[in-house]
Amino acid sequence: MNEPGPFILDARLATDCHVLGDAPLCRWLLMNDASYPWCILVPRRAGVCEIHELAPADRRQLLDESVMLSEALLAVCGGDKLNVAALGNVVEQLHVHHIVRRRGDPAWPAPVWGHAPAVAYAEAALAPLVTALRAALPDWAAARS
Amino acid sequence: MNEPGPFILDARLATDCHVLGDAPLCRWLLMNDASYPWCILVPRRAGVCEIHELAPADRRQLLDESVMLSEALLAVCGGDKLNVAALGNVVEQLHVHHIVRRRGDPAWPAPVWGHAPAVAYAEAALAPLVTALRAALPDWAAARS
Repeated sequence: MNEPGPFILDARLATDCHVLGDAPLCRWLLMNDASYPWCILVPRRAGVCEIHELAPADRRQLLDESVMLSEALLAVCGGDKLNVAALGNVVEQLHVHHIVRRRGDPAWPAPVWGHAPAVAYAEAALAPLVTALRAALPDWAAARS
Repeated sequence: MNEPGPFILDARLATDCHVLGDAPLCRWLLMNDASYPWCILVPRRAGVCEIHELAPADRRQLLDESVMLSEALLAVCGGDKLNVAALGNVVEQLHVHHIVRRRGDPAWPAPVWGHAPAVAYAEAALAPLVTALRAALPDWAAARS
Protein backbone atom coordinates (compact mmCIF):
# COMPACT_ATOMS: atom_id res chain seq x y z
CA MET A 1 0.00 0.00 0.00
CA ASN A 2 1.00 3.63 0.56
CA GLU A 3 0.87 4.33 -3.16
CA PRO A 4 -1.21 7.34 -4.12
CA GLY A 5 -4.20 6.94 -6.43
CA PRO A 6 -7.92 6.27 -6.28
CA PHE A 7 -9.47 4.00 -3.66
CA ILE A 8 -9.79 0.38 -4.77
CA LEU A 9 -11.24 -2.17 -2.37
CA ASP A 10 -8.67 -4.83 -1.47
CA ALA A 11 -9.21 -7.96 -3.56
CA ARG A 12 -9.45 -10.29 -0.58
CA LEU A 13 -12.04 -8.12 1.15
CA ALA A 14 -13.99 -7.95 -2.13
CA THR A 15 -13.95 -11.74 -2.36
CA ASP A 16 -14.83 -12.42 1.28
CA CYS A 17 -17.61 -9.84 1.74
CA HIS A 18 -20.92 -8.49 0.48
CA VAL A 19 -21.15 -4.71 0.01
CA LEU A 20 -23.81 -3.03 2.16
CA GLY A 21 -23.19 0.49 0.85
CA ASP A 22 -20.97 3.56 0.94
CA ALA A 23 -21.21 5.98 3.87
CA PRO A 24 -19.48 9.38 3.69
CA LEU A 25 -16.10 7.86 4.54
CA CYS A 26 -16.31 4.08 4.52
CA ARG A 27 -17.48 1.22 2.37
CA TRP A 28 -19.61 -0.95 4.64
CA LEU A 29 -19.15 -4.69 4.14
CA LEU A 30 -20.81 -7.82 5.49
CA MET A 31 -18.38 -10.69 5.92
CA ASN A 32 -19.71 -13.81 4.21
CA ASP A 33 -19.46 -15.93 7.36
CA ALA A 34 -22.73 -17.06 8.87
CA SER A 35 -20.94 -18.07 12.09
CA TYR A 36 -21.02 -14.48 13.37
CA PRO A 37 -22.77 -11.23 12.41
CA TRP A 38 -19.60 -9.54 11.13
CA CYS A 39 -19.29 -6.22 9.32
CA ILE A 40 -16.20 -4.37 8.18
CA LEU A 41 -15.67 -0.64 7.60
CA VAL A 42 -13.13 0.32 4.94
CA PRO A 43 -12.28 4.05 4.71
CA ARG A 44 -12.23 5.00 1.03
CA ARG A 45 -8.76 6.50 1.22
CA ALA A 46 -5.99 5.05 -0.92
CA GLY A 47 -2.79 3.93 0.75
CA VAL A 48 -3.92 4.15 4.38
CA CYS A 49 -3.05 1.20 6.63
CA GLU A 50 -3.45 2.59 10.17
CA ILE A 51 -6.18 4.59 11.92
CA HIS A 52 -3.67 7.23 13.02
CA GLU A 53 -2.64 7.78 9.38
CA LEU A 54 -6.10 9.14 8.56
CA ALA A 55 -6.62 12.92 8.62
CA PRO A 56 -8.20 14.07 11.91
CA ALA A 57 -11.61 14.74 10.30
CA ASP A 58 -11.56 11.29 8.67
CA ARG A 59 -10.72 9.67 12.00
CA ARG A 60 -13.72 11.31 13.62
CA GLN A 61 -15.94 10.23 10.73
CA LEU A 62 -14.65 6.66 11.05
CA LEU A 63 -15.55 6.77 14.75
CA ASP A 64 -19.03 8.09 13.98
CA GLU A 65 -19.65 5.41 11.35
CA SER A 66 -18.29 2.75 13.71
CA VAL A 67 -20.78 3.78 16.39
CA MET A 68 -23.65 3.79 13.87
CA LEU A 69 -22.67 0.34 12.64
CA SER A 70 -22.21 -1.02 16.18
CA GLU A 71 -25.67 0.10 17.24
CA ALA A 72 -27.27 -1.19 14.03
CA LEU A 73 -25.57 -4.58 14.27
CA LEU A 74 -26.68 -5.13 17.86
CA ALA A 75 -30.19 -3.87 17.12
CA VAL A 76 -30.59 -6.22 14.16
CA CYS A 77 -28.74 -9.29 15.41
CA GLY A 78 -28.65 -9.08 19.21
CA GLY A 79 -25.63 -10.54 20.99
CA ASP A 80 -23.53 -10.39 24.13
CA LYS A 81 -20.45 -8.44 23.06
CA LEU A 82 -19.04 -6.54 20.15
CA ASN A 83 -15.45 -7.03 19.00
CA VAL A 84 -14.12 -3.92 17.24
CA ALA A 85 -10.65 -4.28 15.75
CA ALA A 86 -8.24 -2.90 13.18
CA LEU A 87 -5.61 -5.63 12.74
CA GLY A 88 -4.36 -5.67 9.15
CA ASN A 89 -1.60 -8.24 9.47
CA VAL A 90 -2.82 -10.03 6.34
CA VAL A 91 -4.84 -7.38 4.43
CA GLU A 92 -2.88 -4.12 4.63
CA GLN A 93 -5.70 -1.79 3.53
CA LEU A 94 -7.16 -0.18 6.66
CA HIS A 95 -10.34 -2.01 7.63
CA VAL A 96 -12.14 -2.19 10.95
CA HIS A 97 -13.91 -5.38 12.00
CA HIS A 98 -17.19 -5.22 13.94
CA ILE A 99 -18.15 -8.70 15.10
CA VAL A 100 -21.14 -9.61 17.22
CA ARG A 101 -20.15 -12.24 19.74
CA ARG A 102 -22.39 -14.58 21.69
CA ARG A 103 -21.53 -16.76 24.63
CA GLY A 104 -21.34 -20.20 23.08
CA ASP A 105 -20.54 -19.06 19.54
CA PRO A 106 -17.97 -21.27 17.75
CA ALA A 107 -14.90 -19.34 18.93
CA TRP A 108 -16.14 -17.91 22.26
CA PRO A 109 -14.36 -16.46 24.21
CA ALA A 110 -11.39 -16.50 21.84
CA PRO A 111 -11.09 -14.06 18.93
CA VAL A 112 -12.71 -15.28 15.70
CA TRP A 113 -9.76 -14.81 13.36
CA GLY A 114 -8.16 -18.09 12.37
CA HIS A 115 -10.58 -20.11 14.46
CA ALA A 116 -12.32 -21.94 11.62
CA PRO A 117 -13.01 -21.45 7.91
CA ALA A 118 -15.87 -19.10 7.06
CA VAL A 119 -19.30 -20.66 6.59
CA ALA A 120 -20.94 -18.92 3.63
CA TYR A 121 -24.48 -17.65 4.10
CA ALA A 122 -27.28 -19.56 2.45
CA GLU A 123 -29.00 -17.24 0.00
CA ALA A 124 -32.25 -17.48 1.92
CA ALA A 125 -30.51 -16.19 5.06
CA LEU A 126 -28.37 -13.57 3.36
CA ALA A 127 -31.01 -11.44 1.68
CA PRO A 128 -33.07 -10.67 4.81
CA LEU A 129 -29.93 -9.87 6.82
CA VAL A 130 -28.64 -7.47 4.18
CA THR A 131 -32.06 -5.85 3.96
CA ALA A 132 -32.30 -5.49 7.74
CA LEU A 133 -28.80 -4.03 8.07
CA ARG A 134 -29.39 -1.58 5.23
CA ALA A 135 -32.68 -0.53 6.81
CA ALA A 136 -30.90 0.14 10.09
CA LEU A 137 -28.17 2.17 8.40
CA PRO A 138 -28.51 5.88 7.77
CA ASP A 139 -30.17 6.77 4.49
CA TRP A 140 -26.92 7.61 2.77
CA ALA A 141 -25.80 4.01 3.00
CA ALA A 142 -28.95 2.50 1.59
CA ALA A 143 -29.14 5.16 -1.11
CA ARG A 144 -25.67 4.50 -2.43
CA SER A 145 -25.55 0.74 -2.18
CA MET B 1 -20.38 -4.52 34.89
CA ASN B 2 -22.95 -1.82 34.16
CA GLU B 3 -23.27 -0.99 37.85
CA PRO B 4 -22.85 2.69 38.68
CA GLY B 5 -20.04 3.79 40.99
CA PRO B 6 -16.45 5.00 40.86
CA PHE B 7 -13.97 3.66 38.32
CA ILE B 8 -11.94 0.71 39.57
CA LEU B 9 -9.42 -0.93 37.24
CA ASP B 10 -10.38 -4.52 36.47
CA ALA B 11 -8.40 -6.91 38.67
CA ARG B 12 -7.05 -8.95 35.77
CA LEU B 13 -5.81 -5.85 33.93
CA ALA B 14 -4.22 -4.65 37.17
CA THR B 15 -2.42 -7.97 37.56
CA ASP B 16 -1.29 -8.27 33.94
CA CYS B 17 -0.10 -4.70 33.34
CA HIS B 18 2.12 -1.87 34.54
CA VAL B 19 0.50 1.56 34.86
CA LEU B 20 2.03 4.25 32.62
CA GLY B 21 -0.22 7.05 33.81
CA ASP B 22 -3.64 8.67 33.63
CA ALA B 23 -4.58 10.79 30.62
CA PRO B 24 -7.75 12.93 30.69
CA LEU B 25 -9.96 9.93 29.92
CA CYS B 26 -7.94 6.72 30.08
CA ARG B 27 -5.56 4.88 32.31
CA TRP B 28 -2.63 3.94 30.09
CA LEU B 29 -1.23 0.47 30.75
CA LEU B 30 1.77 -1.52 29.50
CA MET B 31 1.03 -5.23 29.20
CA ASN B 32 3.68 -7.26 31.02
CA ASP B 33 4.52 -9.35 27.95
CA ALA B 34 7.95 -8.79 26.44
CA SER B 35 6.90 -10.66 23.28
CA TYR B 36 5.23 -7.53 21.85
CA PRO B 37 5.19 -3.81 22.70
CA TRP B 38 1.58 -3.82 23.93
CA CYS B 39 -0.30 -1.00 25.62
CA ILE B 40 -3.92 -0.83 26.74
CA LEU B 41 -6.18 2.19 27.18
CA VAL B 42 -8.91 1.90 29.82
CA PRO B 43 -11.45 4.76 29.91
CA ARG B 44 -11.99 5.70 33.57
CA ARG B 45 -15.76 5.33 33.34
CA ALA B 46 -17.49 2.81 35.57
CA GLY B 47 -19.74 0.21 33.97
CA VAL B 48 -18.82 0.82 30.33
CA CYS B 49 -18.15 -2.27 28.21
CA GLU B 50 -18.43 -1.00 24.61
CA ILE B 51 -16.99 2.02 22.76
CA HIS B 52 -20.45 3.07 21.58
CA GLU B 53 -21.66 3.19 25.20
CA LEU B 54 -19.29 6.09 25.94
CA ALA B 55 -20.66 9.64 25.74
CA PRO B 56 -19.79 11.28 22.39
CA ALA B 57 -17.16 13.58 23.94
CA ASP B 58 -15.55 10.61 25.70
CA ARG B 59 -15.46 8.66 22.44
CA ARG B 60 -13.61 11.48 20.73
CA GLN B 61 -11.17 11.71 23.65
CA LEU B 62 -10.57 7.96 23.46
CA LEU B 63 -9.81 8.35 19.76
CA ASP B 64 -7.40 11.21 20.44
CA GLU B 65 -5.59 9.27 23.17
CA SER B 66 -5.48 6.20 20.91
CA VAL B 67 -3.77 8.21 18.17
CA MET B 68 -1.29 9.70 20.67
CA LEU B 69 -0.49 6.25 22.03
CA SER B 70 -0.19 4.71 18.55
CA GLU B 71 2.31 7.31 17.42
CA ALA B 72 4.29 7.09 20.66
CA LEU B 73 4.46 3.29 20.57
CA LEU B 74 5.71 3.20 16.98
CA ALA B 75 8.18 6.03 17.65
CA VAL B 76 9.64 4.29 20.69
CA CYS B 77 9.51 0.66 19.56
CA GLY B 78 9.37 0.68 15.75
CA GLY B 79 7.45 -2.14 14.08
CA ASP B 80 5.58 -3.14 10.93
CA LYS B 81 1.91 -2.89 11.97
CA LEU B 82 -0.27 -1.80 14.82
CA ASN B 83 -3.19 -3.93 16.02
CA VAL B 84 -5.87 -1.79 17.68
CA ALA B 85 -8.73 -3.72 19.21
CA ALA B 86 -11.54 -3.59 21.76
CA LEU B 87 -12.54 -7.22 22.31
CA GLY B 88 -13.63 -7.74 25.91
CA ASN B 89 -14.81 -11.33 25.71
CA VAL B 90 -12.90 -12.18 28.90
CA VAL B 91 -12.45 -8.83 30.69
CA GLU B 92 -15.74 -6.92 30.39
CA GLN B 93 -14.41 -3.50 31.37
CA LEU B 94 -13.88 -1.50 28.17
CA HIS B 95 -10.20 -1.59 27.25
CA VAL B 96 -8.50 -0.98 23.92
CA HIS B 97 -5.40 -2.96 22.97
CA HIS B 98 -2.58 -1.31 20.99
CA ILE B 99 -0.05 -3.93 19.96
CA VAL B 100 3.04 -3.35 17.84
CA ARG B 101 3.46 -6.24 15.42
CA ARG B 102 6.58 -7.26 13.55
CA ARG B 103 6.90 -9.69 10.69
CA GLY B 104 8.40 -12.72 12.36
CA ASP B 105 7.10 -12.00 15.87
CA PRO B 106 5.92 -15.10 17.77
CA ALA B 107 2.31 -14.95 16.54
CA TRP B 108 2.73 -13.22 13.14
CA PRO B 109 0.48 -12.89 11.17
CA ALA B 110 -2.13 -14.28 13.58
CA PRO B 111 -3.60 -12.18 16.39
CA VAL B 112 -1.61 -12.34 19.64
CA TRP B 113 -4.46 -13.27 21.99
CA GLY B 114 -4.25 -16.87 23.11
CA HIS B 115 -1.14 -17.55 21.09
CA ALA B 116 1.24 -18.20 23.96
CA PRO B 117 1.56 -17.30 27.65
CA ALA B 118 2.92 -13.82 28.38
CA VAL B 119 6.67 -13.51 28.89
CA ALA B 120 7.24 -11.09 31.77
CA TYR B 121 9.73 -8.27 31.21
CA ALA B 122 13.08 -8.53 32.90
CA GLU B 123 13.43 -5.58 35.26
CA ALA B 124 16.42 -4.29 33.32
CA ALA B 125 14.29 -4.10 30.16
CA LEU B 126 11.13 -2.80 31.77
CA ALA B 127 12.40 0.41 33.36
CA PRO B 128 13.87 1.95 30.18
CA LEU B 129 10.74 1.05 28.18
CA VAL B 130 8.42 2.62 30.74
CA THR B 131 10.62 5.71 30.86
CA ALA B 132 10.69 6.00 27.07
CA LEU B 133 6.93 5.56 26.72
CA ARG B 134 6.24 8.10 29.48
CA ALA B 135 8.63 10.55 27.82
CA ALA B 136 6.75 10.14 24.53
CA LEU B 137 3.39 10.67 26.18
CA PRO B 138 1.90 14.11 26.67
CA ASP B 139 2.91 15.79 29.94
CA TRP B 140 -0.37 15.01 31.64
CA ALA B 141 0.41 11.31 31.53
CA ALA B 142 3.89 11.57 32.96
CA ALA B 143 2.73 14.05 35.59
CA ARG B 144 -0.03 11.86 36.96
CA SER B 145 1.70 8.49 36.87
